[in-house]
Amino acid sequence: MSEIWLKKVNWSDDGLVPAIAQDASSGRVLMMAWMNHEALKQTVQTGEAVYWSRSRKKLWHKGEESGHVQRVQEIRLDCDNDVLLLCVEQVGGIACHTGRESCFFRVLTKGRWVEVETAIKSPEAIYSNTLLPKGMHKK
Amino acid sequence: MSEIWLKKVNWSDDGLVPAIAQDASSGRVLMMAWMNHEALKQTVQTGEAVYWSRSRKKLWHKGEESGHVQRVQEIRLDCDNDVLLLCVEQVGGIACHTGRESCFFRVLTKGRWVEVETAIKSPEAIYSNTLLPKGMHKK
Repeated sequence: MSEIWLKKVNWSDDGLVPAIAQDASSGRVLMMAWMNHEALKQTVQTGEAVYWSRSRKKLWHKGEESGHVQRVQEIRLDCDNDVLLLCVEQVGGIACHTGRESCFFRVLTKGRWVEVETAIKSPEAIYSNTLLPKGMHKK
Repeated sequence: MSEIWLKKVNWSDDGLVPAIAQDASSGRVLMMAWMNHEALKQTVQTGEAVYWSRSRKKLWHKGEESGHVQRVQEIRLDCDNDVLLLCVEQVGGIACHTGRESCFFRVLTKGRWVEVETAIKSPEAIYSNTLLPKGMHKK
């Protein structure tokens, strides 16, 4: 596979770019995570979102533990070649490790970040089949 | 003004967080730029998006030269407190310095980034009243 398209991406000094995931049906912005060269390559090859976990310092196939994978319908690159936008089908309707549809569930209201959405499913229920150290689900 | 809400944001080591701007009416993701403490504070105070330009190393009131300001309707913070999502009214319908509605106008298609949108207005027309050095409009 020619990889000219991978070289076109303006990777930062640490080899990453932000990747925004937007829900294909609702249009909601679900999350933002990071991709390196290999994560983007695997995302394209598998058709499912693979990010680079900065906390775990490893590739992170989104949904690998929760089942909440993201089927990628489209990948866009911005004018400066340094931000990716993924149009995804969010399996399970939950993108956030807290059990919410979107990671953006806090709204600034009169000087406070107010949670405006409750969890669809508890993290305990989502990750009930796994025994994971604290922070494992953090991007 | 109490600034507890500003301290709640998990600023990176260089004092920045990514800020995604989404169009309030169309739902399109328009752009992603960066904010520091002061940029977010001014955004809230003025009701218009103010970013931190990493290339110019200064605050950047989006639209200050083009007139394409972003009126902020809502600000959200993600689960990890390190990404902002702005719901905006994009004045002029153009967010990108290339004259397009959105900065995300290239789609990965068969191993190539293909431009799928043309400019609504040329950059020359947008910035005709100003004489700016190359790169001035880059984030």
